[in-house]
Amino acid sequence: MDERRARRPGGRSARVQAAVHEAVTGLVGERGYGNFTVGEVAARAGVADSSVYRRWGSLEALLTDVMLTRLNARSPMPDTGSIAGDLRAYAAAVAREITGPDGPALLQLLLALHSAGEQGIRARDNLLADRSQQLQSMLDRAQERGETTPPIDDVLDHVLAPLYIRVLFNAGPLTPTYVDNLVDRLL
Amino acid sequence: MDERRARRPGGRSARVQAAVHEAVTGLVGERGYGNFTVGEVAARAGVADSSVYRRWGSLEALLTDVMLTRLNARSPMPDTGSIAGDLRAYAAAVAREITGPDGPALLQLLLALHSAGEQGIRARDNLLADRSQQLQSMLDRAQERGETTPPIDDVLDHVLAPLYIRVLFNAGPLTPTYVDNLVDRLL
Repeated sequence: MDERRARRPGGRSARVQAAVHEAVTGLVGERGYGNFTVGEVAARAGVADSSVYRRWGSLEALLTDVMLTRLNARSPMPDTGSIAGDLRAYAAAVAREITGPDGPALLQLLLALHSAGEQGIRARDNLLADRSQQLQSMLDRAQERGETTPPIDDVLDHVLAPLYIRVLFNAGPLTPTYVDNLVDRLL
Repeated sequence: MDERRARRPGGRSARVQAAVHEAVTGLVGERGYGNFTVGEVAARAGVADSSVYRRWGSLEALLTDVMLTRLNARSPMPDTGSIAGDLRAYAAAVAREITGPDGPALLQLLLALHSAGEQGIRARDNLLADRSQQLQSMLDRAQERGETTPPIDDVLDHVLAPLYIRVLFNAGPLTPTYVDNLVDRLL
């Protein structure tokens, strides 16, 4: 297989990406993070190992690309016109996601990357930097509208952290009231 | 090996427990949660599989027993005479633990149990119930002294959750000032 000769690189590139992402999602579901290799992803996707390395660089970078694509599709940063509305909508989306069928998959990935050496740490930091930047843009928009906004660290500490830890500790359901209260308390 | 014939059941029992706990700690360090069996623990500890099942019932219950023993040894609930002192000391101990060599091992275990079916969920709930009870006793002592105390859920949401998530998200160091601020903000 020589992908450089593909006649429609954009189309082929998109197909490779879709096949590789789907292979990762399948392997994560069946075995969990940390229990499969780039070779297994490539075989399942029907592409060469070298294609995966060329495009993503490492398994860790590939895993975070898949996660980021999913997060951006399922929990995009809202733009409701007010910081309260934005944070409530964002917190509700996160709550829905982590109590859904995939559960706290982001935490699972972060923990796997946490113990995956330097490449894991770098991939983790890139993933979080990307989402943080989006969250920061949401806060910046509110400030430009003249609203008072909390620091981004406080959103992490007092809205996102409780949601994740509640699911992991099975410490009560994430009711809409509970989720809204986290935001109201912060604001 | 017939352990019921051991002449000093207490001594033998304690030795079995120590050997099994040590085997678990070793296997967790080498392979991570979810990547070894009761048979492998038993072989490493030099005991029969049946001894492990008889005493612990399941791998999940054994894993939580090891974790609970460690938590109780390394992060016992403090008794400083004031709720502020207790919560600060407790938060500092948790921060020290999760930034130490074993890292967020409790989160790793909870995530592994989260996806380990009914026995995993039961073991997880037992582990957390035990620690929650200890934390509640700490809060109750303060109330008996006439202090105003936060609900236990708020300690989880706004002190413990940020500590864990900050480590996992690599969102800044857990300085003593940061840790104390989480407590002060809650109180």
